[in-house]
Amino acid sequence: MKKGLLMVNTGEGKGKTTAALGMLLRSWGRDFRVCVIQFIKAETGKWGEVRAAKKLGIEWHTTGDGFTWTSKDMEETAARARHGWELAREKISSGNYDLIVLDEFTYTMAYGWLDVNEVLDWLRKNRPANLHLVITGRSAPEELIAEADLVTEMKVIKHPFDKGIHAQAGVEF
Amino acid sequence: MKKGLLMVNTGEGKGKTTAALGMLLRSWGRDFRVCVIQFIKAETGKWGEVRAAKKLGIEWHTTGDGFTWTSKDMEETAARARHGWELAREKISSGNYDLIVLDEFTYTMAYGWLDVNEVLDWLRKNRPANLHLVITGRSAPEELIAEADLVTEMKVIKHPFDKGIHAQAGVEF
Repeated sequence: MKKGLLMVNTGEGKGKTTAALGMLLRSWGRDFRVCVIQFIKAETGKWGEVRAAKKLGIEWHTTGDGFTWTSKDMEETAARARHGWELAREKISSGNYDLIVLDEFTYTMAYGWLDVNEVLDWLRKNRPANLHLVITGRSAPEELIAEADLVTEMKVIKHPFDKGIHAQAGVEF
Repeated sequence: MKKGLLMVNTGEGKGKTTAALGMLLRSWGRDFRVCVIQFIKAETGKWGEVRAAKKLGIEWHTTGDGFTWTSKDMEETAARARHGWELAREKISSGNYDLIVLDEFTYTMAYGWLDVNEVLDWLRKNRPANLHLVITGRSAPEELIAEADLVTEMKVIKHPFDKGIHAQAGVEF
């Protein structure tokens, strides 16, 4: 039995986006057609992963404003999330991809900008059977977890910030 | 304060190697000098990640026989692990890298082929201060966790094998 998997990387720990990147690299290594849509994160293009994707020629869209949780203009932030979902639907239903990553997509549902049941309903009707979909972010809604094939929780056991060490370029971003 | 991090991805869930790959991609995107040494896994070169690394020109060594846990010749398996560690020490102490991944390295200590205290002692004395080291695998020894800067546990919440879906090329390998 072969089918596209709906995968979720969630939890408070590191490695949610990073594991999605690893899957992207692995898929790219097999000449899969891949695409990334990043929600929430800013369109700076300075992140290590965005630089890598550019070098690899991987299609990469950033749709967030990068300051969602402290945004002064939540209307703008919510509108960006909805725009990102519009783009995601276009890519998903196109049939042009083998694997699509929706990075930090959980927040759009957790914050109520998108309705999780509407999202899942749309996916059931429009996701090509062989398309792998990877969704990352904290606070994955129960409905999404129930629907997914593979769900991994990344748990913090120890974090360098506890020791006063700052985030490191090339490792965490 | 800037320093190379000792990072461990452990736990029973998916994403340990995959997150290390993501970090590799991110580092590569920043023109870091990176290198991967894979323990345990066979030298087939058919994995998606090995193909990707070849395409990217990333230095990648596989040192395992791929059948460690069912190996009929444990002497051979143990010898391969020790050879891998020899190679790792050479790469680590060379000063030629910014990030090195020791994939599935925990098993060499968990199975007793290498002594965790000797490994840590060697690392304390020989690891360049700015080198990031990523170690993956289940059953990370307590001593390693105590020494590490960042430890993440990957937990299975749901796995497609439960539904009778087989491992998928490009996603899981």
